[in-house]
Amino acid sequence: MTSATSATSAIEIDLVSDTSTRPSRDMLARMMAAETGDEQRGEDPTVLRLCEQIAGLLGMEDALFLPSGTMCNQIAFLVHCRPGDEIIAAENAHVFGSEGAGASALAGAQFHTIATPSGIFDAAAVAAHIRAPRMRRPRSRVISVEQTTNRGGGAIWPVEELAAIVALAREHSLAAHMDGARLFNAVVAAKTPAKIFTAGFDSAWVDLSKGLGCPVGGVLAGSKDFIAEAWHWKHRLGGAMRQSGILAGAGLYALDHNVERLAEDHANARLFADIVRGLDGVTVSPENVVTNILFLELDERLEAAAIATALKEHGVRIGVEGPRRMRVVTHLDVTRDGVERAGRAFAETVQTMLG
Amino acid sequence: MTSATSATSAIEIDLVSDTSTRPSRDMLARMMAAETGDEQRGEDPTVLRLCEQIAGLLGMEDALFLPSGTMCNQIAFLVHCRPGDEIIAAENAHVFGSEGAGASALAGAQFHTIATPSGIFDAAAVAAHIRAPRMRRPRSRVISVEQTTNRGGGAIWPVEELAAIVALAREHSLAAHMDGARLFNAVVAAKTPAKIFTAGFDSAWVDLSKGLGCPVGGVLAGSKDFIAEAWHWKHRLGGAMRQSGILAGAGLYALDHNVERLAEDHANARLFADIVRGLDGVTVSPENVVTNILFLELDERLEAAAIATALKEHGVRIGVEGPRRMRVVTHLDVTRDGVERAGRAFAETVQTMLG
Amino acid sequence: MTSATSATSAIEIDLVSDTSTRPSRDMLARMMAAETGDEQRGEDPTVLRLCEQIAGLLGMEDALFLPSGTMCNQIAFLVHCRPGDEIIAAENAHVFGSEGAGASALAGAQFHTIATPSGIFDAAAVAAHIRAPRMRRPRSRVISVEQTTNRGGGAIWPVEELAAIVALAREHSLAAHMDGARLFNAVVAAKTPAKIFTAGFDSAWVDLSKGLGCPVGGVLAGSKDFIAEAWHWKHRLGGAMRQSGILAGAGLYALDHNVERLAEDHANARLFADIVRGLDGVTVSPENVVTNILFLELDERLEAAAIATALKEHGVRIGVEGPRRMRVVTHLDVTRDGVERAGRAFAETVQTMLG
Amino acid sequence: MTSATSATSAIEIDLVSDTSTRPSRDMLARMMAAETGDEQRGEDPTVLRLCEQIAGLLGMEDALFLPSGTMCNQIAFLVHCRPGDEIIAAENAHVFGSEGAGASALAGAQFHTIATPSGIFDAAAVAAHIRAPRMRRPRSRVISVEQTTNRGGGAIWPVEELAAIVALAREHSLAAHMDGARLFNAVVAAKTPAKIFTAGFDSAWVDLSKGLGCPVGGVLAGSKDFIAEAWHWKHRLGGAMRQSGILAGAGLYALDHNVERLAEDHANARLFADIVRGLDGVTVSPENVVTNILFLELDERLEAAAIATALKEHGVRIGVEGPRRMRVVTHLDVTRDGVERAGRAFAETVQTMLG
Repeated sequence: MTSATSATSAIEIDLVSDTSTRPSRDMLARMMAAETGDEQRGEDPTVLRLCEQIAGLLGMEDALFLPSGTMCNQIAFLVHCRPGDEIIAAENAHVFGSEGAGASALAGAQFHTIATPSGIFDAAAVAAHIRAPRMRRPRSRVISVEQTTNRGGGAIWPVEELAAIVALAREHSLAAHMDGARLFNAVVAAKTPAKIFTAGFDSAWVDLSKGLGCPVGGVLAGSKDFIAEAWHWKHRLGGAMRQSGILAGAGLYALDHNVERLAEDHANARLFADIVRGLDGVTVSPENVVTNILFLELDERLEAAAIATALKEHGVRIGVEGPRRMRVVTHLDVTRDGVERAGRAFAETVQTMLG
Repeated sequence: MTSATSATSAIEIDLVSDTSTRPSRDMLARMMAAETGDEQRGEDPTVLRLCEQIAGLLGMEDALFLPSGTMCNQIAFLVHCRPGDEIIAAENAHVFGSEGAGASALAGAQFHTIATPSGIFDAAAVAAHIRAPRMRRPRSRVISVEQTTNRGGGAIWPVEELAAIVALAREHSLAAHMDGARLFNAVVAAKTPAKIFTAGFDSAWVDLSKGLGCPVGGVLAGSKDFIAEAWHWKHRLGGAMRQSGILAGAGLYALDHNVERLAEDHANARLFADIVRGLDGVTVSPENVVTNILFLELDERLEAAAIATALKEHGVRIGVEGPRRMRVVTHLDVTRDGVERAGRAFAETVQTMLG
Repeated sequence: MTSATSATSAIEIDLVSDTSTRPSRDMLARMMAAETGDEQRGEDPTVLRLCEQIAGLLGMEDALFLPSGTMCNQIAFLVHCRPGDEIIAAENAHVFGSEGAGASALAGAQFHTIATPSGIFDAAAVAAHIRAPRMRRPRSRVISVEQTTNRGGGAIWPVEELAAIVALAREHSLAAHMDGARLFNAVVAAKTPAKIFTAGFDSAWVDLSKGLGCPVGGVLAGSKDFIAEAWHWKHRLGGAMRQSGILAGAGLYALDHNVERLAEDHANARLFADIVRGLDGVTVSPENVVTNILFLELDERLEAAAIATALKEHGVRIGVEGPRRMRVVTHLDVTRDGVERAGRAFAETVQTMLG
Repeated sequence: MTSATSATSAIEIDLVSDTSTRPSRDMLARMMAAETGDEQRGEDPTVLRLCEQIAGLLGMEDALFLPSGTMCNQIAFLVHCRPGDEIIAAENAHVFGSEGAGASALAGAQFHTIATPSGIFDAAAVAAHIRAPRMRRPRSRVISVEQTTNRGGGAIWPVEELAAIVALAREHSLAAHMDGARLFNAVVAAKTPAKIFTAGFDSAWVDLSKGLGCPVGGVLAGSKDFIAEAWHWKHRLGGAMRQSGILAGAGLYALDHNVERLAEDHANARLFADIVRGLDGVTVSPENVVTNILFLELDERLEAAAIATALKEHGVRIGVEGPRRMRVVTHLDVTRDGVERAGRAFAETVQTMLG
């Protein structure tokens, strides 16, 4: 039996995203051994077990298995909002820029964004974005935070800031939602249990297919009432699957084996930063890499696309985010050695280009 | 390595739906061996191969892998319609009664339904439901057919009727859409290639998780432009997954091994019908079972719920569709012998109840 | 000061619709004298007075002035429904066929229609259309009735039938909504106060621009909470106007002067029916004309369009509803004499055509 | 015959908004003499004449009468956008903050806002907000500008800036939309014909109920195709009225009599600014008042609500926009003398408060 193998074998070190991980041989074995049933009817025992575990980790009453993190966000907004409501989020949040304007297209809600390079904002900024109730105004309804912040360079929301935001949400009868695509990265890096981060939140989810290394899925958690309502939307959007125990089995495996090891990804991201920091023409952002994401800002002599092309010859792939902006994401499928090679390849490429 | 095992082991013969099939050992092996990549970026070779095969079978230019048949229908409507458009469909169609009013909730489209017990309607009925363009009226936009008809007892749309509907659609600039949840049942029962049924349709899809026995997924096909637009909605609804090659591998296996064998399911459904036909108090519908679905209409002395409860003691499960209506669906995971036992158990139960 | 004069002066007798009435000299005087203010801020005293009067007549707590009856219906659905909900209504209801699929486009709700030529249905028919709660199904949410029924030939819902429907709505936690475009016609014809018809309804509205003869507007009534929520939608849809007291003044005038006189319109409609009843090739529907609407069904020797053209030469206009279907609506701007002339012109035309 | 009289007679000088104007005796006479017809069927000659005039003034092919400016904006977005599209607008635009999130609730579109205190932005800012086409991203679709800018203090978009934005829109296949609520103020203040401002725009509208002094209505203009599509939405939203010629008559009167006189409002606004400029504790914004709107920023010793209360005793009303922010809007119903009195009352109040 062969394990799943790469489709882009020319690339040995793929740092574009942690979504590219492939299930390991052991994870596959756990998937194939999973007990299954019809998930839509609540009869898949492996899915039920995974949801119970995630709900427990997040300190929530109940949880729902979904095919993607995007669907977790969209369903949370669909349950929390009525058409005409407003969602407060960072301008560089995934929900605003990378989900096809789904919150508006599906839930009829409008984003009111906060400009913040790190993706983190404080309660005062939120307060300034909550609208006093007036007939013609959108109704402030949800505060959405992203833990860790993707476009903010993997920054971690401090527990106190989250608590302040939850308190503000309570005061104004808003729902607090956490996009926890990389929540476990924060858990490991900050040595803080997930439920401490999600305390008081009305909804939160974790992604199985990023750092955790599963092929498909996310788990959305909240109160029993929230999840009951979310089930309707899971059906309506077409997220109700059948013998999903096979996918949930990967999730259970990942919770056992792939959480603590995220520390290695963080160390690897710092390693890459250390190698390229100080290079002429390149700024590493954030200065202090805390989880598995970092951005490289290039000066006017360099071009992201050209660097990406050159790196391919080294078997290395990193993300092109703009004409002079690149992204590096470490994960389960790249080793310390690979990251070191990638960092050196990047440095050489830049030095060659600058002659 | 054990194969996936049943979560409801007390039930040996489950005839509630063909969605309950579990992947076989061989299918699982094919899934595990599947080459994978990031499906969202178009980099999963197994998904690409499956889509190419299905597009070919349906005579379409392109295809898209999705987590469920419901999402196939919803995305087709989202691409074909603008808010305020109207979809013509059978009153007992899955899209009208079993998808949470998704076409209205998501695409803002309204259903204009045709009453038809078999789920099949002719072009004249469609013509009577197409609205002349007038300012205040909904705009007729899509004709949706279901092959085979679920609530219509697995009836098969004749090729000529489909052709007449496609011609009418052309004439009125409507889109023709086929919900092909059980298209392969029609293919096998009518010995007609899929592309003959879908000829001229603007969109059509097949389900992998029903008769084909896969755990998760459906494939939506159409023109290149249609699929390009459908991709946006796949992302927006949260149907864009990652290493879905694992799921697509099951689909490829099913196309090789589980299509022709649908004939056994059809024979088994007829067997069940033959056993219970003529029972006092029970009418089999349709009279002539042609694929894998049949309904049992009970007279006023019998109750569906009570029969279902009694059957459980025989290890048999059939669907309760109403106070005096039950459904039987045969599939990959029930043998001829099992169906025979189920039919006899049903007959005995009814006879006992009528004393 | 000249009164508003006709734009289509060649037509002397316009029986196409009761929406074509022009404000009388006295009504105009009342409009000009109306005290006004900014309606959006709740500062237009004439609008406030009209809303109070209508709320009182319908036995409701509060009411809202809107630019049209269609907006009354749409806002009622927007307040009662969440996306994915279902509205039960007659297949020939105005909300289903003549409002651009607005309930689906705006509220994301789906219609579940009842086939009924008269536009009236009983509680048993409703019960058969209420869906048992199940995850995948649309959620039954509103029962909508139209008093009188437009496409049903001006039929009047009996009080007992409405009461039975309200009771059923309560039992299933549905909202009961009345499209009262011609409620006052029912009030006058059945000698029944409006509030008796609307008893127990969650929302109801009356049109000012049909039989009442005003130029613009409808008034939607319901509980205080319902109207508070409706206000948000009035703003969002663009129905919040400014010095609408001018329009509301017409409404106040109409309540004083144009309600009881609807009896004349009803007598005139019966007169027309009496003149044309028994004509070869023509069937009057309904047999028994009770308010101000009647339909003429033509046999295969006659064509509606040709009759309409011929009638224009007599200075008469009646509605073409289909190739062999015409509609006659009596109203404030046609006299008994005019109706008699129109009836005779119709009879002559038909007789000439049949040679 | 009495003219329409004030409902809030204790207030003699109302500077809260130019929407509070009441129709003058002469305007009322023109309204009452208007020839009318059923506007929905395109048979109201006064409405047709008004639409033709406005289309001509804006250099557009066709136009549509609507009950409010908000509906003009909403319908423009509904025609230009499909769900998931993105609209670029100023963060303080009326469409973003004062229309109940309608563009998201109705059109399913998302706003991508530009921070700009004046409400004016340049083409470079727009370019930075246009998204490169990528699957997961919202699709940039509309650029919306507001002429003059309400929250930006009545600032006028320069013709060159508008031309640059139109060119950018063309280049990226975006629609350019102008919210012309106060376009005529710009026309008069900048001595520039309306069609020079709207050149190249795909849609633009003017409000009749603000500076022009009409009681109700706005007129939306664009290409023939745009207006044909807009008609469907006019019906769907409930903006199709009946004998609206009465309202359109006011518009025709205003075009003849109330445009050039806007210069008086502008002079009055400058007068108010001159009186209060230099007051301790108060900053006038913008420094240079160019049309009929100005804001007063208070320092921490003053409170807007308290000032508003004190001013009422002087028979003066100005707008409270925030704890320390007030708005003054001059219009047809306040004289130069009244504005002077209001300015002095404001100055005295502030001086008294600061002791």
